[in-house]
Order: sequence, then structure tokens, then C-alpha cells
Amino acid sequence: MSHGRIHNFSAGPAVLPLPVLEELRETLPNLEGTGVGLMEISHRSSTFVDIFERARERVKRVLGLPDSYTVLFLQGGASSQFLMVPWNLLHGGACDYIDTGVWSTKAVKEAGRFGEVHVPWSGKSTEYLETPSSWSSTPGAVYTHYTSNNTIYGTQFHHVPDVGDAMLVCDASSDIASRPQPYEEMDVIYAGAQKNLGPAGVTLIALSERALARARASDAPTMLAYATHVDKKGMFNTPNTLGIWVLERVLAWVEEQGLDAVAARNKSRSDRLYELLDGSDFWLPHASSDSRSQMNITWRLADAALEPVLIQEALDAGLSGLKGHRSVGGLRASMYNALPDASADALLSFLQEFERARG
Amino acid sequence: MSHGRIHNFSAGPAVLPLPVLEELRETLPNLEGTGVGLMEISHRSSTFVDIFERARERVKRVLGLPDSYTVLFLQGGASSQFLMVPWNLLHGGACDYIDTGVWSTKAVKEAGRFGEVHVPWSGKSTEYLETPSSWSSTPGAVYTHYTSNNTIYGTQFHHVPDVGDAMLVCDASSDIASRPQPYEEMDVIYAGAQKNLGPAGVTLIALSERALARARASDAPTMLAYATHVDKKGMFNTPNTLGIWVLERVLAWVEEQGLDAVAARNKSRSDRLYELLDGSDFWLPHASSDSRSQMNITWRLADAALEPVLIQEALDAGLSGLKGHRSVGGLRASMYNALPDASADALLSFLQEFERARG
Repeated sequence: MSHGRIHNFSAGPAVLPLPVLEELRETLPNLEGTGVGLMEISHRSSTFVDIFERARERVKRVLGLPDSYTVLFLQGGASSQFLMVPWNLLHGGACDYIDTGVWSTKAVKEAGRFGEVHVPWSGKSTEYLETPSSWSSTPGAVYTHYTSNNTIYGTQFHHVPDVGDAMLVCDASSDIASRPQPYEEMDVIYAGAQKNLGPAGVTLIALSERALARARASDAPTMLAYATHVDKKGMFNTPNTLGIWVLERVLAWVEEQGLDAVAARNKSRSDRLYELLDGSDFWLPHASSDSRSQMNITWRLADAALEPVLIQEALDAGLSGLKGHRSVGGLRASMYNALPDASADALLSFLQEFERARG
Repeated sequence: MSHGRIHNFSAGPAVLPLPVLEELRETLPNLEGTGVGLMEISHRSSTFVDIFERARERVKRVLGLPDSYTVLFLQGGASSQFLMVPWNLLHGGACDYIDTGVWSTKAVKEAGRFGEVHVPWSGKSTEYLETPSSWSSTPGAVYTHYTSNNTIYGTQFHHVPDVGDAMLVCDASSDIASRPQPYEEMDVIYAGAQKNLGPAGVTLIALSERALARARASDAPTMLAYATHVDKKGMFNTPNTLGIWVLERVLAWVEEQGLDAVAARNKSRSDRLYELLDGSDFWLPHASSDSRSQMNITWRLADAALEPVLIQEALDAGLSGLKGHRSVGGLRASMYNALPDASADALLSFLQEFERARG
């Protein structure tokens, strides 16, 4: 491929659209003819403020959010949101966290400081191989928190949970903007950018009006209070300017194709991979069929000794990032929006050939 | 200049070394021959871990810190350190904050939650035109916090305060690595990267052994506890990988020249500008002569009506970023490490010509 690029199945930071990288290369020394480079321009310059506002509008359009939502680009990743969400919203109340694995567990831990945390459903006893279709919500819960896609176990919700009057908080880090979703049913949507949106170092947060109203009554410190950032139009302190530029360009790339088309491609290629993995006892796909992720496909080999062999041979064939998360082992192919079809095709061919040779 | 670049005197994000930008352009689609781009490679890949460790070592070498210090690259800017420093170190004790302007004031505000905050010296009543040479420290204070350079007022400490047995905490955001300093006399050094180190979105933190030991006893939440990040070798969560790469390359660029040479250049060109400003009543430099910043030179015109004229004519002549901070007005030239000498020369010539025409 151009620039000697290989096929990149990394779970994040992950592959980005090549046209965005090419545009970034042009803009590094000189942004939009200003004579000042992208990383070197004041975040308060009109040129950058325009980019920032374009990015906020772009997020709303791509996700289909009404104007009443507020979009922020903060720093510190989803890990910081594990703390900010309960501090801004809980205020000693009760909340529900759906436990679909490592990330949910980390979020639960941080919430404990701020109120009564319930876990009405956990996949722990079944190795997190599925997402739930329903559970008993805690009466009077302020919010329900769920992780829409789990990168480690390769599971994904294929519906938005109905949580009644409670607010709905979604950690959408690993599948945001990968398919149309009724995002307007969520009160807080947050996502680290480094999977479907851009580089590491930017966190997207979208807040409904009622989430923001409740956040205003919080005693969170300045930098952790959503209200601080909302009131300063997202620029309380210097944001990750380059990261926001890339995010805006990546979402423009999604918008040009249409989210429906992007989603159809994501579904089609994950379907093809699951079909292959289901096709013989040589492969052991991890997730239950109705909970399978279109972003992160995880599996093992019946003969576990062949897993490192496969990973090495794949690398030799120009396919990188197929090793499973260190906490679970096995294999994982991450196929985010920006993965070229040629990479998905190359993976399928490689796996078929590997099975033919070793199966 | 190449790429149509103009002279950039922005206070931050600020001008970066062109050779680093050129190298970054090459590395965006393909990092070190891996076939994977810089923003797209896993932060846990051996290639990136090597870069990360090189950056940590580079910081210690350039700042002259002993091996016993721990270097972190977090997110959230100095504004997040205003909160993390007291939460990790104060534990209900007393501390001193030296108030040299806006940034110190913000830091004081966050510390109030965690203990007894004293301000033994404030420049507020004299429009923050100087930094103090001494003050009465609070007996038993856990630490003293100071801002080594103030971007808004153009003031800078030209010595490291002696605070006895207390720990010394330095917000070095705007003059880190601009001159040799006895950094090993400081227990916490923190700096947003977007002035002398790289792009916005990375915060450098260096901790002495005793600072880290005290931080370990803190009740800070996971993401705000220094110990979390130290124990995970700086990779508790996904760091700003591109920003860290740039920071490493910028410090390599400093190291190649030698910090002494960089400092001599910084001093020489700020001296020349101050000499010009002192040369006639046409100009009114802000800071007291013994407190003047070598990074941010601030001044007014005797005829304030000429200030917007100067800013516009400068921009027309290819000199950008000369407008003073919105809170104080006037003029400001930021001349960080990476400012080319040609830009400093162009500014001097422009100001001489402006005075000749209007003085």
C-alpha cells in the first residue's frame, strides 16, 4: 500500500483514513493559508475557533443529536469520564452500572465515592461473552451506565437500553459513529477518540440538557465540572488542538460517505469474518452470536499452541495488531470505520489459507 | 519562509522547530518503518514504548534531573495539575502559594479543598509587574508553589526560591527547558507542553522521591493519583501518543544545540527587545527590570490608540500573535526556544520602523 503501510487491526490507537493523514501533512506547517502550522496556532485565533465549532456541529450531525445537546472535547480519556460522570451527576443518589467487562468495572470503582452503585447485571460469571437484553433497574436511580461495545471481549449492544425515567450514560469509546443509533435517547455520551474518531488525547463528551442541568448542581472541582467547560464554550483551558482538527476531518470523511453506508460496510465485513470463524471447529469465536461486536472480533484457536504461530505469520504477511488483549489472550481483529476493505479482505484470505495449511 | 510560514509570536500553542514538523510529516503515515502511522500505532507496541521511555530519559537529561525522579506525560494541562498537586501532596496540611498572577490565582483556588492555603507574597496590588526575591514562609508548610514564568504579565523568576524543608512545586509551563535551572531543587515540576515542548494536549510532570512517597498516601481518585500513573509506568490509560513523540523530538532538538546555547540565544534576543523598549518614551515595557521574562515580553505604547494599528501593521508584515492577553491588553511577543532568530530580527526591525514612522 502507499507509504509502505501494512494492514492495521490495532484496537486503539487505530487505523485512520489515509486522506485525513495526507491533509494533516499539508496542514502541519501551514494551516488554511494562515502561515502558521496546525499545532502552532493559538486556540483562541478565529481560524481555530472556527475549526472547533465545526467539529462540535459535525459531531451533532453525524450522531443525529438535537441542538439542545452540548458537545465538549476534553482530555484524559474515558478513564477520566469514569470519575467525571458520577461526580457531576450522582450527588449521593443511586445509579446502575451494567457490567460487560473491564471498562465497566473500572467505571463502577470510581462511582462508589459519590453515591449508591448497583450492578443489576454482570457478565462476569460467563466470561463476558454476551451483553444483556434486559435487567431490573434500581427504582429511583439517577442514571444507568453502560459500555456500548467492549473491545476486550468483542461484545456489543445491538439496542439502546430502555431505562425509564433514569438518565442513560453511554461509554461509546469503541463504537461511536460506526452505525446509526438513537443517540438522542442518551443523556451523556462519551468516547476516547482513538478508535473511530482520531488520535489518542481527545475525549468527546455530549450532554443532554437535563444532564447539564444536574451537573450544574455538582461540587466537582473546576476542571472536573462539566459546567466549567460548557460555560467557557469548551475552551476553559487549551484543548488538544491537533486532535480536534483530526476528529473533525475524520467525521467529515464519515459524513461524505453517510453513516448508513459506513455502518453497512462495518456489518458486512464483520459478518464475513464471523461466518468464517463459525465455519469450522478450527476456530472458537468468543462472543455469543446475538452480542457480537462489529468493531472487535475476538476468537481463539481450538489448538491454542497455534495462536502465536498465527500472529507471527500474519505479521510476516503484513497484518498487524491481531493479538488479543493481554488480559484474555487469543486473537482479536479490530475493524473500525477507517479500516480499508482491502485490509479486511487480506485478513479473510490469510485466515482461510492458515486453516487450509494447519487445519 | 518555507511553506509560506510567517513569524509566529503566539503565547501558546506556539511555534515549533521546523525540522521536527518535517520529521512528523514523514512519520504520520509510517512510523520508523513499521508500516503503521504514528497516530495509529498501539501505545503498548514495543516501538511506541521505546519512544515513550526515550522521552522520559530525554526530559531527565535536558533538565538535569537525577534518576530518582519519575517523569509522567499526562493530559489536561497545567489546569489539571492545579488540582492534582494539592490532592496528592497536601492531606490537610498547610502550603504556600506565591501569587504572580492569573495562573497562581487559579492554582490557589483548587488547593483550598485540601488544606490550609497561605499566600505569603502577592503582586496583585502592583499589577503583577515583578516576581519576589523573598517572603516569609509558613512554618511547617508541606510545600511552596510558584509559577516560574508568567505569560500574561511577562514576568519570570531568575532564581529558584529557597523554601527550607518544605517541598518546592513549580508550574514551569512557559519557561521549561529554556535555560539551565537547578530543577533538582524542585519536588514537583509540571508544564503544559504547548509553549516550549510540543503541541497542546500533553502535560509533563516530574516528581522527586519524597513527593511521590507523599502522593502514595493520598486519597485521590484513580486518574488523579500520581501513584496510579507511576505504578503503570506512565501508561495507565492511553496517552497522547503523537504529542509525546513531538515532545521527544523537540527535546532532542534542544539537546543537540545544548541547553546553554539555547538559553544564551533566548537571553540575547529578549535583551535586544527590552533594550529597544527602554530606548524611548514611545514604548512602555510592563515588567520591572529584574523580573523580566525572556519568554514573553509585554509592553504598551505611550499612545494606546496606536496599539491596534501596530498589531494590524505587524500582521500585514507577516508578524502574528503580538496582541497582549485579553485580560491585560497591550502587546506581547512570545519568544520561546523554537522561535527562529529571523523572526526575532524581523520583529526588531518592524518595531524600529514603526517608531520611526509614528514616534
